[in-house]
Amino acid sequence: LANLIGIIGGTGPEGKGLAARFARAGHDVFLGSRDAERGAAAAAELSALTGNKVRGGANADAARLGQVVILTVPYEGMRTTVRDLTDDIRDKILVSTVVPLEFSRSGIRMRHVEDGSAAMEAQLVAPQARVVAAFQNLSASHLIDLDHAVDGDVIVCSDHFEATREVIELAGKIPGVRGINGGPLANAVLVESMTALLINLNRLHKAETQIRIAGL
Amino acid sequence: LANLIGIIGGTGPEGKGLAARFARAGHDVFLGSRDAERGAAAAAELSALTGNKVRGGANADAARLGQVVILTVPYEGMRTTVRDLTDDIRDKILVSTVVPLEFSRSGIRMRHVEDGSAAMEAQLVAPQARVVAAFQNLSASHLIDLDHAVDGDVIVCSDHFEATREVIELAGKIPGVRGINGGPLANAVLVESMTALLINLNRLHKAETQIRIAGL
Repeated sequence: LANLIGIIGGTGPEGKGLAARFARAGHDVFLGSRDAERGAAAAAELSALTGNKVRGGANADAARLGQVVILTVPYEGMRTTVRDLTDDIRDKILVSTVVPLEFSRSGIRMRHVEDGSAAMEAQLVAPQARVVAAFQNLSASHLIDLDHAVDGDVIVCSDHFEATREVIELAGKIPGVRGINGGPLANAVLVESMTALLINLNRLHKAETQIRIAGL
Repeated sequence: LANLIGIIGGTGPEGKGLAARFARAGHDVFLGSRDAERGAAAAAELSALTGNKVRGGANADAARLGQVVILTVPYEGMRTTVRDLTDDIRDKILVSTVVPLEFSRSGIRMRHVEDGSAAMEAQLVAPQARVVAAFQNLSASHLIDLDHAVDGDVIVCSDHFEATREVIELAGKIPGVRGINGGPLANAVLVESMTALLINLNRLHKAETQIRIAGL
């Protein structure tokens, strides 16, 4: 399994949460940010939290150094971010955690995405990366809480078989988490939709929900 | 809680499974079919299976007699079926278990539905019914297996508060099942999407998957 994990947009709650878990599991992690200083500051925080040295800086460095690159940016900036990094992520696994959400008065909806899903769009923008959709449905606040296992499944969708296998294994490094093969990247839209449902449930029930697949 | 449950399209696996569980829980159930004789035959089967008298016949009778009416028809026939029953289901709870699926070479996808979801479409076709989306993600083969509890959550979406409450209570009559308030009917599309994901997982893993929401 690739060791160095680069996180793009890593200073948000989801990026920090995943970085913390992977650093705790013994991976080298490089936390990228649009603002290199913020990236370095968040990395210092995570080094202290995890007891493992986390490096940080610019997104471009996370993409260049990462053997696996994880995208934790809002959907709105995804296309530009990925386009700017295409050379750095060539042939690498690019994990998309991105969900195209839309906030309306009655709740959270899925944004219509021309290419079908955020992950499909990322794959089309970076055809030479091996895009894998995963980790959309883990709660950031549970991820950062290193004293407790995470109660959630990660459904992994990709058109690259070996990449799917690696990300399933990576998911399993987070205590309590099970990585599940979710089939081709075309299925990612169904997994991204679950995020919108979970956020709606969180608001309704004042909870931090995650997903378990029963029967596997 | 309403006692007599009418099931529209009740001779399919999902309809029979729900009928079996509700009959076993002590409800009066009327199983409707497009073909009254098939409805009566399936009902006789379920009477023997559940040890509780299940009646059966035409869909129109299920709609007329049911205090709660459950729709378990394929999406393709839903609009016509609901339109033909609008007078019978006036002011009643109409539970939509319907999911608009599309089968492609690479897997199961969601059909594009102009009104947003099957349940929203049913509500627009029958504005005087109180439509509740629920039960889409319970495995029919687990439902009919009365010796075992069902390992799944039912997310209940409706714009009718009292109807939501009643259907949550109804879901709880199935051993192992938890009914969860999923908010307004606009959220139903997110729950219907889960069905497509589960069917894809079933095919990939040769399993019968269901959904659990962790953290509630």
